[in-house]
Amino acid sequence: MKEVLAELRTHLAQVRDLAQASSVLGWDRETNMPPGGAAARARQLGTLSTMAHRLFVSDQVGEWLEQLVPYEAELGFASDEGSLIRVTRREYQKQRRVPSELVGQMARAASLGHQAWVRARQESDFGLFQPNLEELVALRLQWARCFDYEESLYDPMLDNFEPGLTAAQVRRVFDEYRPALVRLVSAISDPAVQQRVDTGCLQGDFDPAAQWELGLEALRTIGFDFNRGRQDRSAHPFTTSFSCDDVRITTRFDPGNLASGLFSSIHEGGHALYELGVSPTLDDTLLGNGASMVAHESQSRLFENVIGRSRPFWRFFYPALQARFPQFKSVDLETFYRAINRVTPSLIRVEADEVTYGLHIVLRFELEQALVDGTLVVADLPEAWNAKMEAYLGIRPPNDALGVLQDVHWSGGMMGYFPEYLLGSMLSVQLYNQARQEIPDLESQIETGRLDGLVAWLREKIHRHGSKFTLGELTDQVLGTPLSPQPYLAYLHERYGEIYRL
Amino acid sequence: MKEVLAELRTHLAQVRDLAQASSVLGWDRETNMPPGGAAARARQLGTLSTMAHRLFVSDQVGEWLEQLVPYEAELGFASDEGSLIRVTRREYQKQRRVPSELVGQMARAASLGHQAWVRARQESDFGLFQPNLEELVALRLQWARCFDYEESLYDPMLDNFEPGLTAAQVRRVFDEYRPALVRLVSAISDPAVQQRVDTGCLQGDFDPAAQWELGLEALRTIGFDFNRGRQDRSAHPFTTSFSCDDVRITTRFDPGNLASGLFSSIHEGGHALYELGVSPTLDDTLLGNGASMVAHESQSRLFENVIGRSRPFWRFFYPALQARFPQFKSVDLETFYRAINRVTPSLIRVEADEVTYGLHIVLRFELEQALVDGTLVVADLPEAWNAKMEAYLGIRPPNDALGVLQDVHWSGGMMGYFPEYLLGSMLSVQLYNQARQEIPDLESQIETGRLDGLVAWLREKIHRHGSKFTLGELTDQVLGTPLSPQPYLAYLHERYGEIYRL
Repeated sequence: MKEVLAELRTHLAQVRDLAQASSVLGWDRETNMPPGGAAARARQLGTLSTMAHRLFVSDQVGEWLEQLVPYEAELGFASDEGSLIRVTRREYQKQRRVPSELVGQMARAASLGHQAWVRARQESDFGLFQPNLEELVALRLQWARCFDYEESLYDPMLDNFEPGLTAAQVRRVFDEYRPALVRLVSAISDPAVQQRVDTGCLQGDFDPAAQWELGLEALRTIGFDFNRGRQDRSAHPFTTSFSCDDVRITTRFDPGNLASGLFSSIHEGGHALYELGVSPTLDDTLLGNGASMVAHESQSRLFENVIGRSRPFWRFFYPALQARFPQFKSVDLETFYRAINRVTPSLIRVEADEVTYGLHIVLRFELEQALVDGTLVVADLPEAWNAKMEAYLGIRPPNDALGVLQDVHWSGGMMGYFPEYLLGSMLSVQLYNQARQEIPDLESQIETGRLDGLVAWLREKIHRHGSKFTLGELTDQVLGTPLSPQPYLAYLHERYGEIYRL
Repeated sequence: MKEVLAELRTHLAQVRDLAQASSVLGWDRETNMPPGGAAARARQLGTLSTMAHRLFVSDQVGEWLEQLVPYEAELGFASDEGSLIRVTRREYQKQRRVPSELVGQMARAASLGHQAWVRARQESDFGLFQPNLEELVALRLQWARCFDYEESLYDPMLDNFEPGLTAAQVRRVFDEYRPALVRLVSAISDPAVQQRVDTGCLQGDFDPAAQWELGLEALRTIGFDFNRGRQDRSAHPFTTSFSCDDVRITTRFDPGNLASGLFSSIHEGGHALYELGVSPTLDDTLLGNGASMVAHESQSRLFENVIGRSRPFWRFFYPALQARFPQFKSVDLETFYRAINRVTPSLIRVEADEVTYGLHIVLRFELEQALVDGTLVVADLPEAWNAKMEAYLGIRPPNDALGVLQDVHWSGGMMGYFPEYLLGSMLSVQLYNQARQEIPDLESQIETGRLDGLVAWLREKIHRHGSKFTLGELTDQVLGTPLSPQPYLAYLHERYGEIYRL
């Protein structure tokens, strides 16, 4: 049995090497590649994806998995190797349904789509991206039809990022969360209430080089290891992992807005800590990344918001910001704290406050479902986007760059990802509450810049397991309860009720 | 037949995509990768190399090539497709002899070797690199033994970079060249003669950012297209191609020496123009790169030296240098021209003048042969290096970083490459002489910054063919004569005889 498992591992390591190579090519495309490189890069990524898929779904893998059934039981559920067999089988059964050629076709379309999106966004012209998006949506639908699904073609798309998640589940959680959220947004939107927070200090002229340095300092503070990763610039911030010892994050800066780049760095830093914390023993298998996108976003949103916009963090980090931007020497910490937590409808999701953020997600969730069930065609997407922005947030994007073209996801053919941001935000609060119970002096640790206690706790509870466990298995183990919107709502009411004196 | 060829092409395009992906991973390793990434990167490159090799040497490729024999004759020698079949067959017959596992093993060892070399060079400690180099040499010998060779195990190593080249041929050319070279070096080394050139203007404190900008300007001047490539920094300058529309070069700067980074940029720029000039119709095949290393070095050395250190080029480009480094406003062009052409024994090959350069190559050629025939072991390499430096150039490296650790090649397991630099230098002069005959006003074009005429000529004669033709076939077509050291010697005597008033 050990020999069979060893053969399987050797085989899967090749699949993994191809996937990691694809990640390097994707990273280079978004950070360094000159425009001329686009066509060849799409071909290269198509070939790597097809080959990785073909290797993974080979009959041989199925035979090994079959032979390993008794050994799996013997190894036990929580063991690395038992998990490897279990998760590989789950993924194998899914991936077997998809033709390898389609996988390559999607990778090529995604690579070309990304280039088209970058240009369309620069020129704020949806038309430049529309044909690509039409192809990407058609391919994603073709892909989704490979699977059995109970209710909606959207289910396999969700399952792709969050195993087991369905549209019905998302709807149930969002339905529980939305009414309370709408009441909170409405209370804060009262003009008399809005006046209670002044964000003047965050507007101005902020040297990008100093912003870059401040971002690096924030990353060092949360524990990002620059011997095992780096930060670069890209059109849309992202995190990618070439191994558990080489994790890359990207960011972008707005010279007129200090918060934008800083919180983007901290957000991606949260993702990176997860990938850097995966046990090296899993690195050559498909267990070597974070468990799921909800699990991942729980880490990024935890660092970006729960910690990154908290008083304890800024009691420690504010002097570093003041040293790089001396204009803040005349701004007291409390004014700054309230400014970075201002709640107000805005156009860009990644720069939205925590409270209105949920409405950006609901909008995308609804649009994606409409694209999938055919009630919306790609050509009508910009107008549908703008109409929903007006309905939910009361503001209308002045152009496509600030509207439908703002997010990178669709350009890569990713649909069914956005809900995970919000579910991840919910989980981040549950995790933080749990950590506070288990680390009684957590806040005073953070106040003195010591985040290693929290990171060690997250590593022990979440990171090191890679994708051994599903989200449900993780929450059972770590929290003893499932994911729920209630702690998140309580957190939002507490933090923003205090700031806005509601 | 067309269908068979189409199947072969589709298959080879996958091999090509894997090879180009490997190039991206190699580039990233040398420009961006954090230290932690080394182990996984070696695994990834090993897997990609093994898979590319296995795909290429599959029985199926052999069957296709067999079936295509009659069609090849029909297509004709000079056609793209006839050449594709011919060159693929030649490479197939070579590569079939090597086990795919050995290819992967060599790629892994090269990747780890490179990391070890970077560290060893930084710390100037050969011991840190010695075990890697021992493994790399052993693997290269194991690889060489896969081939039939008439005289020396060194022959397959030369053939690897320059198809058909043998140690005996190299020796014949070097033997013809060396006596005249030694006389020239000796004449210039006379202290009274040495005084005739003053290089004071090249020493000083040169802002690396301004050097970077000047390098970019030089690249633009020779016609490098930044929409289809970019320049980055690395420990050792190199050029790599991810497609004929995405060619990357790297450089490094010495704050105390203006010539070092500038001529390195121009050298790599010459390589890049070659790769950028390959016909796009060849890009998805193994014909899509330069013909051979001698052909390649003929381009880089042509731009670096024949043009890059010539009066006509500097008549145009000197004001750009003076604008970035105002201290040169008081240095006349003639003084500068003589300074950049100073001939004097020095430690570093890539910074050596054109005349003594050949001795650096002879040294490496002899050491590599000694490693191959077993008369030298890796542990004794530093001392053997230093002894030869004293014998040939009269100077002894004060440490390994300035001696045996200076070049990147061995760290990647490359042996048999160095002679091609010198052969390429010889060819560069033959090509330039030919271009001058065919473009009568070439020098006045260069004097006005118009290098497009020369680049178009090189593209027509050399670049566009990719590796359709061997070096011998190319020189037949372009020059009507084979490669020879005599024009190069005449050029050296003319240029340096004039500068040193010999």
